Formats: sequence, C-alpha cells, structure tokens
Amino acid sequence: MNVARVQFGIKDLDKMICGGLLEGSANLLEGAPGTGKTTLAMQFIYNGIVKYDQPGLIITFEEFPQQYYHDALQFGWDLKKLEDEGKLKVIFSDPYTTLDEFDRMDGELVSIVEEMGTKRVIVDSMTHFESLTDDQHDLREIERRFINALKRENVTSILLRENNNLLGQVSQVSSKIPFIVDSYIILRYVEVDSAIEKALCFLKMRGSDHQKDIRCFKITSKGIEVESKFNGREGILSGFTHSTPQDAFVNVFGKK
Amino acid sequence: MNVARVQFGIKDLDKMICGGLLEGSANLLEGAPGTGKTTLAMQFIYNGIVKYDQPGLIITFEEFPQQYYHDALQFGWDLKKLEDEGKLKVIFSDPYTTLDEFDRMDGELVSIVEEMGTKRVIVDSMTHFESLTDDQHDLREIERRFINALKRENVTSILLRENNNLLGQVSQVSSKIPFIVDSYIILRYVEVDSAIEKALCFLKMRGSDHQKDIRCFKITSKGIEVESKFNGREGILSGFTHSTPQDAFVNVFGKK
Amino acid sequence: MNVARVQFGIKDLDKMICGGLLEGSANLLEGAPGTGKTTLAMQFIYNGIVKYDQPGLIITFEEFPQQYYHDALQFGWDLKKLEDEGKLKVIFSDPYTTLDEFDRMDGELVSIVEEMGTKRVIVDSMTHFESLTDDQHDLREIERRFINALKRENVTSILLRENNNLLGQVSQVSSKIPFIVDSYIILRYVEVDSAIEKALCFLKMRGSDHQKDIRCFKITSKGIEVESKFNGREGILSGFTHSTPQDAFVNVFGKK
Amino acid sequence: MNVARVQFGIKDLDKMICGGLLEGSANLLEGAPGTGKTTLAMQFIYNGIVKYDQPGLIITFEEFPQQYYHDALQFGWDLKKLEDEGKLKVIFSDPYTTLDEFDRMDGELVSIVEEMGTKRVIVDSMTHFESLTDDQHDLREIERRFINALKRENVTSILLRENNNLLGQVSQVSSKIPFIVDSYIILRYVEVDSAIEKALCFLKMRGSDHQKDIRCFKITSKGIEVESKFNGREGILSGFTHSTPQDAFVNVFGKK
Amino acid sequence: MNVARVQFGIKDLDKMICGGLLEGSANLLEGAPGTGKTTLAMQFIYNGIVKYDQPGLIITFEEFPQQYYHDALQFGWDLKKLEDEGKLKVIFSDPYTTLDEFDRMDGELVSIVEEMGTKRVIVDSMTHFESLTDDQHDLREIERRFINALKRENVTSILLRENNNLLGQVSQVSSKIPFIVDSYIILRYVEVDSAIEKALCFLKMRGSDHQKDIRCFKITSKGIEVESKFNGREGILSGFTHSTPQDAFVNVFGKK
Amino acid sequence: MNVARVQFGIKDLDKMICGGLLEGSANLLEGAPGTGKTTLAMQFIYNGIVKYDQPGLIITFEEFPQQYYHDALQFGWDLKKLEDEGKLKVIFSDPYTTLDEFDRMDGELVSIVEEMGTKRVIVDSMTHFESLTDDQHDLREIERRFINALKRENVTSILLRENNNLLGQVSQVSSKIPFIVDSYIILRYVEVDSAIEKALCFLKMRGSDHQKDIRCFKITSKGIEVESKFNGREGILSGFTHSTPQDAFVNVFGKK
Repeated sequence: MNVARVQFGIKDLDKMICGGLLEGSANLLEGAPGTGKTTLAMQFIYNGIVKYDQPGLIITFEEFPQQYYHDALQFGWDLKKLEDEGKLKVIFSDPYTTLDEFDRMDGELVSIVEEMGTKRVIVDSMTHFESLTDDQHDLREIERRFINALKRENVTSILLRENNNLLGQVSQVSSKIPFIVDSYIILRYVEVDSAIEKALCFLKMRGSDHQKDIRCFKITSKGIEVESKFNGREGILSGFTHSTPQDAFVNVFGKK
Repeated sequence: MNVARVQFGIKDLDKMICGGLLEGSANLLEGAPGTGKTTLAMQFIYNGIVKYDQPGLIITFEEFPQQYYHDALQFGWDLKKLEDEGKLKVIFSDPYTTLDEFDRMDGELVSIVEEMGTKRVIVDSMTHFESLTDDQHDLREIERRFINALKRENVTSILLRENNNLLGQVSQVSSKIPFIVDSYIILRYVEVDSAIEKALCFLKMRGSDHQKDIRCFKITSKGIEVESKFNGREGILSGFTHSTPQDAFVNVFGKK
Repeated sequence: MNVARVQFGIKDLDKMICGGLLEGSANLLEGAPGTGKTTLAMQFIYNGIVKYDQPGLIITFEEFPQQYYHDALQFGWDLKKLEDEGKLKVIFSDPYTTLDEFDRMDGELVSIVEEMGTKRVIVDSMTHFESLTDDQHDLREIERRFINALKRENVTSILLRENNNLLGQVSQVSSKIPFIVDSYIILRYVEVDSAIEKALCFLKMRGSDHQKDIRCFKITSKGIEVESKFNGREGILSGFTHSTPQDAFVNVFGKK
Repeated sequence: MNVARVQFGIKDLDKMICGGLLEGSANLLEGAPGTGKTTLAMQFIYNGIVKYDQPGLIITFEEFPQQYYHDALQFGWDLKKLEDEGKLKVIFSDPYTTLDEFDRMDGELVSIVEEMGTKRVIVDSMTHFESLTDDQHDLREIERRFINALKRENVTSILLRENNNLLGQVSQVSSKIPFIVDSYIILRYVEVDSAIEKALCFLKMRGSDHQKDIRCFKITSKGIEVESKFNGREGILSGFTHSTPQDAFVNVFGKK
Repeated sequence: MNVARVQFGIKDLDKMICGGLLEGSANLLEGAPGTGKTTLAMQFIYNGIVKYDQPGLIITFEEFPQQYYHDALQFGWDLKKLEDEGKLKVIFSDPYTTLDEFDRMDGELVSIVEEMGTKRVIVDSMTHFESLTDDQHDLREIERRFINALKRENVTSILLRENNNLLGQVSQVSSKIPFIVDSYIILRYVEVDSAIEKALCFLKMRGSDHQKDIRCFKITSKGIEVESKFNGREGILSGFTHSTPQDAFVNVFGKK
Repeated sequence: MNVARVQFGIKDLDKMICGGLLEGSANLLEGAPGTGKTTLAMQFIYNGIVKYDQPGLIITFEEFPQQYYHDALQFGWDLKKLEDEGKLKVIFSDPYTTLDEFDRMDGELVSIVEEMGTKRVIVDSMTHFESLTDDQHDLREIERRFINALKRENVTSILLRENNNLLGQVSQVSSKIPFIVDSYIILRYVEVDSAIEKALCFLKMRGSDHQKDIRCFKITSKGIEVESKFNGREGILSGFTHSTPQDAFVNVFGKK
C-alpha cells in the first residue's frame, strides 16, 4: 500500500522521510525558541504553493500576519503576493474560535480550506490551546478533536509547539499531543566546540519507514538546509553531548 | 508444571520469553510515542488469528477502528477482512463503559469475548483509565478490578500504556499497573551514533524464566523484527547510553 | 548474647546474615515490580514449614490465595497442601481489618497466629496501609503499631513493600518504615551488558553483624539463588552502573 | 532585503551579529546576578548616544536613577550629563504604570519616546512584570502587549531579565518571553580552572544569520569586552564544563 | 581559651575532634536507617557513665526502653544495670511533653537532669518534633527553644535525626537544625566494590578546629570503630563514588 | 572614579577584591551550616574596630549576644570589651522591629548607627526575614527596602544568609537578594581526597574589577585564612569535583 507524500521541498529532509510527510497527516513540530520552527513551517507552505501547486493556510494565534510576511521575505519568500494570488491565507485567530469553527464545520476557516482547495495547513501554535482549560484530560480531548477535524478536511498539517527545553535532556514529552499525531519532529540546540548548533530528528512517524538520524541543520538565507549526522558525538539528545572516546583518541593519536 | 504459551509469532521475541506469553495473563506494554506499541499489539492480534487461529478483540479509547485498519494495512495485515470473517472485533469505547460492562459481566464486550471465543485482547490504552478518578488508591483498585475481569475471561491481554519518558532514565514506574500485571514490557528510544534506535525489554515476567536482554528492534514493512543486544554499550536504560570503555579502546587500538 | 536465627533455607543468603533473620524481628523487603519480592517471601514461608517445621501465615491485600498457590507451584512449592496440613494459612484481608484485629488482640489473625503456633508471617504488602490515611505522621504511627503487634506475637515477619524505583538511583527512602524495622532488604534491577540482572542487598540489620555485599541473584525453577558480588562494577545502586576503569583496562590490555 | 542594524559599539559583539541588533527589534537579555546585564545594557545606551547619535530611554523598576549614574560612572559613562543634554532619560517607574502608559499611547513614556526621538530603550527588568498576575497565560499576554507597544514605537529595545540559574544546566526557559522576542541573549557564569569566567551567547536571532559561538567576555574599566570561544571545553552550558578529552591528551602528551 | 571536652571514648573518633565534643554543646547526628546513629549515641552514653563517670539521660519518642536495653546488650552494654545504679535514665516520652517540661523548667525531665547530675543527653529523635507543627518557621522556633533549654541545663547532647537520603548526593540540609546546633555529624552509606560501607564526617563544629576527613567506620561486636579515610576515592558524598583516575591507573599499570 | 574600600583585614581576601568591599555597599554572604559565615562576619567587624577604627553593629535574630562573645573569644576577639568601650553594639532583635525602626528612621538601631558613628554592620541573618511574608514579591520589596535603608545610613554591611545546599551543585539562587545587593560572596564545602575542604568565591561585585578565583580557605585559631585556588580540579561548584584529566595523567606518568 502506497501513501502519497507531501514534500517539504528540502531535498535532504524529504529524503529522510521517504519522500515527504504522509498526505492528510497531522505532524507535530516542537522546538525551543529560535530553533527554526516557524521558518521550517513557512518553507513547507511556500514550497507547497510554488513548487507543488498546493494552496496553504497559516493559522496564527500570537504573531500578526505582517510579522509573517516580514520574516518570510528575509528568505525571499513573498507570502503577501501568494495571498494576493489566492493560493495562501494567513489568518490571525484565537484557539477558541478556531476550535469552534472546525467543530461546527461552517466557520470561516473550513470555508477557506474547502474553497481554496487548501492542501497544507500550519497552526502556530498548539501551545495556545493550553489557555482553554486547566484540566489535562479535557485538554487532550480538545487537541484530539482539533486534529481529527484537520484530518477530516484531508489537509496535511504542521502543528507547531513551543518546547521550553533549551539544552537539557530530551527526557519527557511536555504534552500528550505526540501520542495523538502521526509524526513528531524535534528541533533542538546542541552545544559543539563552544558554539550552538541545531539538530533535527523525526522521533515518530506512523506507518512509515524513515531515517532516524539526528541531523545537523542550518538556517541560511534560502531557508533550512539539512546537513549530515553529528559524527563522533554521543548524547546529543541528553544535554551532555560529548565526543565519543573513539573520536577523541583518533583526533589525538590518528587512526590505526 | 507447564503453562501454555501464547505466541507473538515473532520468532526472536517468542524465544526471549520461552515460547510466548503465559496463557490467561495480563501483560503491560509501555512506550513513548512512536516506539511501536500499537504495531506490536496489532501483530500479536493478527498473528494470533492467522497463524494460531485464536480470535482477537481490540478495545480502543481514542483511535477510530478505521485508523487501525489503515495502519495495519501498511504491514499487509487486513484487519477489516478478519473482522468480516468473525475472527476479530475492533471496538471503539470509553473506559467507564468498558469497566462497567466487564464488572456486570453481561455487557457487549463480555458477550463478544464469550461468543467469539476470544483468546487475545488488546486495550489501547490503560492511560485513559486515569480520567476516571483523581485518587491514586481508587485508580489502582479500578485497574486491578479490570485486570481481574480480563483474567476471569481467561484471555491473554496486552494492555498498552503511554510512557511520557522519551529518552530520560528509566527511573520510576509511572503507574501502579506494573505491580498488578503478570509481565511488563518496555519499548524505548536509544540514541546511538547520532541516530535513534529502538530497544525492547521484558522487565518483569511472573512465574517464568525469560531472557532479560535489552534487544534492539526494527519496524519493517512486515512489522516488528527483534535483533541482537546492544553490544559494547552501557546505560541503555539510563538515558546516557555510551560505548563501554572496552569497546572504545578496541575500536581504536584493535583487539589484543 | 546470642539471638536465635530464622533461616531462609537459601544457603548463600543465610550465610550473608550470619545464619538467618533475627527471631521475632520485623524485616522490610522492598523492590520494583518483578524483582522477586513475593518469590523470596514465599520461599521463606515454604522452607520454614518444610525444612524447619515453623508454621507460617501469609496476609495478602491484593492477590487472591489462588494466585499464591499457582505462582508457588511454578517452583514446586505446594502451598495448598501445606494449608490443608494446618501448617500454613493464606489470608486475603485488607489493611483496616488487619490492623484492627492485631490491635484488639482477639481477631481471627491473632487466633491463627496463636493456635497454629505461627513462627513466620508475610505481609503483602505494606504499601496498602497508605490508603488508610493521607497524614504522614499518622501513617508512621499506624505502621509502628502494626509492627509492634507482630513483635508482641513473637513472629519473624517479612513485610513486602513496593518500590517505584525501576533503575534510578537508590537515593531516598520512600517511606518511614525502614527507620522502624529491624532489617531492610533491597531487591533491585541492574543493567549489565545490555541485559537486566537482579541485585540483593541488606542495607540495615539491627543488632547484628552481616555481609554488606551487593549480590547478584537469579530466579530459577527452584526459587531464588544468590550468586557472587558484581565484580569490576561501580555505581550499582546509583542507576549508572559501569565497569570500573581498572576492569576496563584489564579487559583490553590484560593484567600486568 | 536588508534591515538596518543598531550597533552595540562593541566591535567583537557587533561582528557576532552581522553588525548589530535589528532596527525596531525587541531583544531579551538574561543572566544570573552579577553577570553584567545592566553593564551591557548601559553600554548599548551610552554608545548609542555618543557614537551613533541615537537618543535613549532607561525604564527602571527597582534601582533609582542615582544608582545608574553612579554605576555608569565607574566605566567613565556620564549618564547625568547626557540626560542634561536631552539625549537620555532615566525613568523610575513600576510595571503597572509603564504597561498602562504604553497601552493608552498618551502617557509620559510614549511622549518621551516620541519627543526625544528615542531610538533605544532599556527595560530593567521584565522580571517585575511577574508581580502583575499569577496566571501564566495572562502574564504572557501582558508581556506580548508590552513588547508590541515597543515595536509600534519603532525603538530597538533590550529587555533585561533576571535568571535564577547560577551555574546549573541551561535546561529550561524560565519564562515565555524568549518565544515572543526577536533575539535572546544569555550571559552566564562558567567555572574554568577553579575560577569563574563569563560567557555570552546569542541563542536566538530572528530573521538573521549570526554567529552561534559561546564567547568568553570580561568586564573591564571600559565596559564589556568580548573575547574568544572557550577552546578545548565541552558542556559550557550544561553546568559541568570540562576539558575535551582531546585537549586533556594534548596538554599532557603534546600534539602529534 | 580552652573548652572542656566530652569524650565519646572511641579513640579515633575523639582524635578527629581534638578530644571530644564541646562541653555543654548540642550536637546533631544524622543518618539513613541502619547507619548506626543509635549505636553511636548509646556508646556515647555508656562510655560516659562507665569511663568518665558522667550520668546520662536517653529521651526516646518511638522505641521502648526495653528495645534500648536489648540492642545495647548486643554490644555488651548493660544499660538496665546502669539505670538501677542511678547513673542512667531511659525515658519514653513524646515531643510535646518533652518540650513543655523543658520550657516550664519544673517537669520530670529537668528534675532528672538536675537530681542525677546528668552530663550527657540523647534525644531519639528530633524528627518527631516535626509532628508538632506544619509551619516551618514555627518548627525552627520550637527546635531552637528546645536546644536552648538543653544548653541552659549545661548538658552535652546528641540529637539524633533521621535522614531519608540512602545513597543519593548529600546536596541539601533536610531541616534547619544544622544551622542551630554546635556540631553536625553525618553517617552515610557508601558503595565500594559492590558492597555497602559506612562513612562518618563532622561537617560542622562550632568554635573548634577539627579533622574534616570522611572516615570509614564499622559496627563491631564492641560498638563503633572508626577506620581510615576512603583513599583513592572521589565523590563519596555525591552518591557517585568512584576510584580516582590516578588510583585506577596505578592499580593497573603500577606506580611509576 | 575611585571608591573608598572597606577592608576585611584578611590580606589575601582584601587582595581578591582590590583592597576591600566598596564603602557604603550591601554585601550578601551565603553558606551552608558550618562554612564560617559568622566567623568571617565577626572578623570583619573586629578588624574594623581594632585595625581601622570603624565602629560596628551586629544585629542578630537568633543567637544571643553571649554566644557571639563566646564564639569570638575562641579566636581571641574580645567583643564584650569592644562593646564596653563604645565601639561595638551587639543587638538581639527580630526582623519586624528591625525593619520598622529602619523605615521610621527614629528607632534604637538608627540611633546607634548615627550616635556611635557606625561604619560596619552585620545582619545575622537575612533568612529570618522570610518569616514576615509568604508572598515572594512582598519579600523582595521588604528586602530591598531594608537594604536601601542600610545604604541611606552609609554603612558597609555584610548580610548573612543561610544556604541549604551542603554539597550539591551551585545551580540556582535561593532568594532574590543576590539581584539587589552590591556583592555576593559564597562559602562552600568541597570534597577533596575523602575530606571536606572549604571554598570561597566572590560571584558578583558591582562596579568593581575583582578576582574571580575559587579559593580554598581555612578557619584557624586566628580566624579565616584564605589560601590558593583548587589547582588541578574541575567542577568545584558543580557538586562533582574531580581531578582534571591532565592532573590525573601527570600524577601517574609525570610531566612531559
């Protein structure tokens, strides 16, 4: 059985996941502040429209659309123009309204999705759903309902979520969403040689074989570029990254 | 005294536990999101029906049956067909109803078990019982009652449970269920050489000698395949996996 | 001054504690799920009756007597037969009743102890006393009263207690019972060479010289067998067990 | 697209961030007590006026202006004189009033900003906003509103924030501000050779390529001076800084 | 200025503290269950009477006097006989009464101290004062009042306190008593070569030079015997004791 | 700009801070029980009077003046005599009264300061202010008000504060005072070679260049003596002090 793939349009990234995200899937993208969540998500939307002709929708709960236009332009992505061409919609909303519209199925958001033929959706960010309730069981139910609604519309979504973990161990999930979604992508800071690098990892990907590498990536003037693994390094996700003893020996004594 | 074994139909896994799970036992299967809990459970049910002619029941509290059919098809397991043949039932329910029906012994679930001659049961997942009460002593009593009901019906059950621990130390049990069940299986992420691998371990197995190895496993297009131990590695369950010093020396200097 | 010893009937274990537990003492046995608490306790009771002609009593708060008979039979111990011969009693009760009967001194349990000439008692488990009160000072007083009652009856008791710590550091006592009892026995998982082994340690033993070794043990078809220390290993109770540097060097370069 | 840069006037620091902070951006500066937050912020304001002719505003919630004049004079920066010349304003206020004035857009602070042509603003410190509410969602909303108001006035701001972490791991963000601001600068103590050094790192910088080095810095009689990376050191942000094995070998055996 | 010393009568221990405890001082003795707190305290009292002719008082809040007589006899110390001779009093009381009697200065305890000419007092244990109040400031005031009362009577006291820390790091004080008392003695488990040893350390000793060694000690049939330091070991109080690298090299390669 | 220095009269200590504390500054001195806070503070006061003719005031909230006289005499410092000569005042008070008197500016304490020409003040300890309120924002405001009052009187103060951290990592500040004061001095236990040593470190010193060394110090019969750095040691403030690898190699193999 073959499932259609929804490409990021980032060659090495798509290769890691056998061509792209699963069509119609909900994908959680978590990272600390500044790790590049929004950049990766915008690139997914922008490439979707420009390279694959798949209309996109960005739902944002805190940043104004202007901030998106502005930030995207840094990478040469003219979102405003795409919006004018009817291929993109950037909506500033709030979690309550968003949830309600998707539940009732007759709200503005659902209309946009259906009328524009939207294939890709960004939600920035799932963190804001936490203001709707203090009850953990209710929150999970809300998140599940919302994710099911996205799947009902058959869009491929990237759900951003803020992760408070800067450089500590990737020890616990910080919400129940990873259990609900189809894939779980982690962006992360890593300290290497007195500098901060960035790592990317697909921790979960339902119903799909994928590369489990922890890859280094850069944010260049053209967006995200995925590089190689962190060779000769252990504990990248533990918060105590260090050279492997092998690597240390080899660096000093040379290879045998 | 010999107890009958209920096989997974996964050769290396069954070998680890002397042939299979104990007939009539309740078995807890825990793991972080994406570690393969549902895949292993579906494989247990599918092989049960196809290889050992033992009817199965899947009780799910969050995923719709369609999701199960869909995910299983990735591995070539046609659950819908088995359901049509009367050898499998996938029930979407909630913890309250499920508990109540098993308590009263005259509910739909008990009927299914008894009429279909169900031998294998999956509960996905025990985590949802936590929404029934905030009192830890009550929760334990509820879990115990439910597990006793399953044993009363003489089915061999795999009880899934979400574990929030992604890559941290396996330090504390996160519920009291491990004290109640007959066996306790842990699936876990392990970082090796800048990639994420998966480990499997039978931490507890009542009344049975079993292999205590921590084994690497893969999810292939045919389901779970169990591989070798993590040779030359320490601290796999500690969250700080590293090469043993021996292994590091040998890699660099060669064996003496 | 010599105190009589109450033997486990497990040679290497009895040797560790100079012949056995102290007559009339209360002994706390803690361990994570599956570490073998119940097996060790049953072996103590079974050997007590069969080898030393000392009648035994098992008080259980969660498992039914049938589970005990069944589990013990795996090791060839026929508890049902011993009960029929009047040398053993397996009582399913609850903490409130048990405490009350021992307090009033005229309950069923005290009668059994006195009429059967009971010398050995198992309580499975002290953990359930925690449901009686949320006040830590009250709980301690309850536990003390119960332990004093056991001592008043001059039985040698093994008090099981669940320990939630799977593989983390043995850092804190998880109750105040270790301060009250005469000895404190810890069973524990240890990761060695990508496998899970079991360790046993007498952390406390009042008024008695004893071996402080951390010993490896196995659960065989005949019950618990105590083996050697974990040679060449550090940090067994720290959750980060590792080869000593000495051991690592010697393994690679050989002994000088 | 090129964004104008607002320089610190500290050569090596400006070089790290491609010339300076982004014009109109909000920048979070966090550090433990004594790491030099206020010194760096004053230097930004002082150089702004003296070197780049950009009027500045300092809003302080705890220190009196006199303390600022006094501390700045240690570095030869005569803030009082700049204030007399109408190029600087040091305002002692409180979070409630400050927030309210910026919201209403007709308060004293907005007047100062607009009349003086203020280009640079220091807020010392954001920590005091926490006294306005105990609700985390409300606090985030307050912080966001305040930061948006600063952006509306098109000033480049440095928002100080106290970080309670002295020498522990940089594991978690201690507020949600890092997710809202455009850049996130961390000052930090590092123990090296039985002495305390200081490190500086730009963890986040929106829409901009920047150096991710963790640099050593000193507070001299002329203010902050940024030095090199911590060569041969791992774990600077982990709280367990140590020599790399390579470095240790080389120090003892020499280079190959 | 020379202060009189109150000897333990344990040669190596008295030598560590320049002859003994300070006359009239309050001394906190903390340890995990089974580390030997009571044994050391009884030895202090017994030697005080037998070797130095200083009458003693033991105030106990949980153990009955009979347990004391019994436990002491294991070491050949006949406390009952000393009590009959009027040189010792073992009082079973509770924290409320004890505190009240010392406050009013006319209770039984003060009478005993004054009539018997008591020079040494054991309180077993300070932990039980915690049941008097849930307010930490009140508790500190209570503890201070009680300790001042002991000083008013000019006795040298050893105040036992349970420490819940089994083998974890000695990181935090677990009460405010260490700030109030004159000296603070820690007994502790240490894992060495797959066995549990015991360590003793005087962390604080007011107004007195003393040895700061962490010494190994044994409980023999004659009581506590203090041995040497833990040579070639680091991190004894950190919970991760290990051989020093030096020691490891020397063990394998020999000394240069 | 040169600020007058207030000397400790401890040569190596004064040298670390370029001659002494800043005149009129508030200085926080923290340490675990027994690390020597009070000794260092008394030495500051005693030397102030005897060597520099600067009258002193000691405000104590828990210890009686007699305890001070007694403890100081151990070092040959006759505080009683200095008090009789009108150069010192030791006041036993409580936080509420102390705060109130300094606020109203007409209380006994302010009179003493002004009439005696007090230049140096000790507050033992700031910890007791925590009993005034449970609200963290109020507490900070109280502490700030009190510290400002001390500065208003232009005295150089040493504010003692109890630190509960015995040997754990110096990870978090335990109050907000370090953010308010002019300097922050930490006294600390360090385990070296199976013994407890003491370390001293000036973590913060406002408006002043100072040595950031972590220095070993001893309490001798003449008071505090500051010694060298901890050479060849890493992680002194991390709670896991260890030899550097370099040091370990050199100790075994000798220098190259």
